[in-house]
Amino acid sequence: MRIAVLGGDGYCGWATALYLSKQGHSVAIVDNFVRRLWDFELGAQTLTPIRPLPERLDAWRRRTGKTIQSFVGDVTDYEFLGSVIRDFEPEAVVHFAEQRSAPYSMIDRGHAVGTQVNNVVGTLNLLFALRELRPDCHLIKLGTMGEYGTPNIDIEEGYIEIEHNGRKDVLPYPKQPGSFYHLSKVHDSHNILFACRIWKLRATDLNQGVVYGAVTDETALDEALINRFDYDEVFGTVLNRYCAQAAVGHPLTVYGKGGQTRGFLDIRDTVRCIEIACANPAAPGECRVYNQFTEQFSVLELAQMVKAAGKKMGLKVEIDHLPDPRVEAEAHYYNAKHSKLVDLGLRPHLLSESLLDSLMNIAVEYRDRVDQSLFLPRVNWRNATNDRRPIAAVASAPIPSA
Amino acid sequence: MRIAVLGGDGYCGWATALYLSKQGHSVAIVDNFVRRLWDFELGAQTLTPIRPLPERLDAWRRRTGKTIQSFVGDVTDYEFLGSVIRDFEPEAVVHFAEQRSAPYSMIDRGHAVGTQVNNVVGTLNLLFALRELRPDCHLIKLGTMGEYGTPNIDIEEGYIEIEHNGRKDVLPYPKQPGSFYHLSKVHDSHNILFACRIWKLRATDLNQGVVYGAVTDETALDEALINRFDYDEVFGTVLNRYCAQAAVGHPLTVYGKGGQTRGFLDIRDTVRCIEIACANPAAPGECRVYNQFTEQFSVLELAQMVKAAGKKMGLKVEIDHLPDPRVEAEAHYYNAKHSKLVDLGLRPHLLSESLLDSLMNIAVEYRDRVDQSLFLPRVNWRNATNDRRPIAAVASAPIPSA
Repeated sequence: MRIAVLGGDGYCGWATALYLSKQGHSVAIVDNFVRRLWDFELGAQTLTPIRPLPERLDAWRRRTGKTIQSFVGDVTDYEFLGSVIRDFEPEAVVHFAEQRSAPYSMIDRGHAVGTQVNNVVGTLNLLFALRELRPDCHLIKLGTMGEYGTPNIDIEEGYIEIEHNGRKDVLPYPKQPGSFYHLSKVHDSHNILFACRIWKLRATDLNQGVVYGAVTDETALDEALINRFDYDEVFGTVLNRYCAQAAVGHPLTVYGKGGQTRGFLDIRDTVRCIEIACANPAAPGECRVYNQFTEQFSVLELAQMVKAAGKKMGLKVEIDHLPDPRVEAEAHYYNAKHSKLVDLGLRPHLLSESLLDSLMNIAVEYRDRVDQSLFLPRVNWRNATNDRRPIAAVASAPIPSA
Repeated sequence: MRIAVLGGDGYCGWATALYLSKQGHSVAIVDNFVRRLWDFELGAQTLTPIRPLPERLDAWRRRTGKTIQSFVGDVTDYEFLGSVIRDFEPEAVVHFAEQRSAPYSMIDRGHAVGTQVNNVVGTLNLLFALRELRPDCHLIKLGTMGEYGTPNIDIEEGYIEIEHNGRKDVLPYPKQPGSFYHLSKVHDSHNILFACRIWKLRATDLNQGVVYGAVTDETALDEALINRFDYDEVFGTVLNRYCAQAAVGHPLTVYGKGGQTRGFLDIRDTVRCIEIACANPAAPGECRVYNQFTEQFSVLELAQMVKAAGKKMGLKVEIDHLPDPRVEAEAHYYNAKHSKLVDLGLRPHLLSESLLDSLMNIAVEYRDRVDQSLFLPRVNWRNATNDRRPIAAVASAPIPSA
């Protein structure tokens, strides 16, 4: 199958592109490298030393004999995106090419507006490009479990049957997103559902949980294939950050009480879920929604698991409770359905000590690269003064005076 | 009360600004006149000859002794918007400053993206400006009943209590918007709700029905105060368009079966609803949603009413059923609640023959200005070929050859 991976140089995108290529699909990566630019803006870098995309693709070709095409450009540029769709003629497009950090979107007005415009316009462009050029192509769009918020009722997969005043309908599940980033994904979801309805496009909207892990069978083949591993407060996902903290003896930074419960999944399941979606395309006009995670944990439970895994390795791990920089419930009901991908064949890698061990090992291997100043939350949801404060000035360590 | 009316040169905004000024409020209009530009783009003009804003404001001052300030600029320009909020120090901001036509948003990709970026960024800017400069100011935002679509259950005012698997919660009412324009309003609603939650802003989101009428007590004071009356397929609302069609002997253009049922209101009720919202501000942190319409009609019922009113005036009015250019149900359940504004004191002007007579009289008075080529739908929801076709080339009458 011809599959274009938009955002294929990023954390999930890179692992996905390699996995799909390995499975024999013809894969193209579309990326503008803006995620690497944001690292410079934040004064942060991935724990693992990732290589430029051409080196990555050379190594992949060398190791496997397989070629992944690359198209360098911005999906918010319709002319560029149209040319990719025309040239590559994908049967499926996997769309990871969005700003994906909630704290990044909460830095200030510019970052909020930038996140929403980037994500919404990129997705609108893709919808129009598919309608115009490849109406039968299957759109696989990455959403987030964070679109749902933490309602006091069970979270269903995209839609819910509501009975009200004696009548019934199946309606889009009500969304209560918790950041301007999460909001952008809700906007996307509404736009995609509409495009499927009026133009009979095929779409699968994957509401993904928080991803952890760094290594897949494919990225492990060669050092030049190493995936990014973010541990900073802005782009680092929580479990990866805790492991990096444990590796350098920094207390684990639990926000508030730590009862915030979310869906999580191993990056090896991310890539498999995408393959499952590709292999089972939505019907024309269908906007299918799957909740893409495998287990629920509270962030305090994760911290306790990292503490236990660290102890086994001889690391002394402490847990700190910081004031929560986000506006969110620190204890709440949470029960989210996630059976549809399992029904289609997903066999989850559940979080166990053995996985945690391997994650800790990576963190320990690269611990000299850790900048501890990146652990602590600097972006506050309530804070009016994030405005216009250049994040890089906050993020970078003070320049030592001569 | 100091009230800023964003989009105060437009159809609802102009009537609102005058009404609030008449009631003794200190009013400022903020507008960039882009609505007038779109008339040029579409080769259309309002049936009524509206005057430039400075002439309008001079006439108002002359007739009433009251001054309305004006700030000329674009709310998507944060520097401009911030300077307005700083200089005028509003206690309430009424936000009409959005692209408000569904067909306009469906012309092509550029118009879809332009509509969403304009509306979403303008509203985000306003939220950030209020947070930074006037956190206690009450935001009164115009949404649309079209955000809800036509669900098979009763439509509530913004929120719905859902019981599911034995648990309950009150959640945002699920939205099924029917155009890229309606989608932009759904995006706004989500953004506003979030901003109220995290920053304790006060907001009233008014989901307005389809507005009809042209004259209010204030616009009738002087010919220079006349309001716009759009009858073209892009910006004309349905009842106004039917009246213009009846006035020139053009068949009424009912889309499909005509069972499409919506909420409607008289523009005299629009201005009163805004005043009621101003007088009863939302609490800090509250995002209140009111459904702002007074009666439900199907578009076929409206056509039949116009036909009857025309007959009384000696006009022969026929009804045509055109293929529906939109993707929408032509017969459906529709029952939308709208009691909250009535509870706060709204006394509706219901659609009666007498109102229709006055509306028909305006249409007849200005019928020489009608361009009949603007009646027929040219923007098709399904049509891939709207893309990049300059609408003006379609809209304008052929240039006669010499």
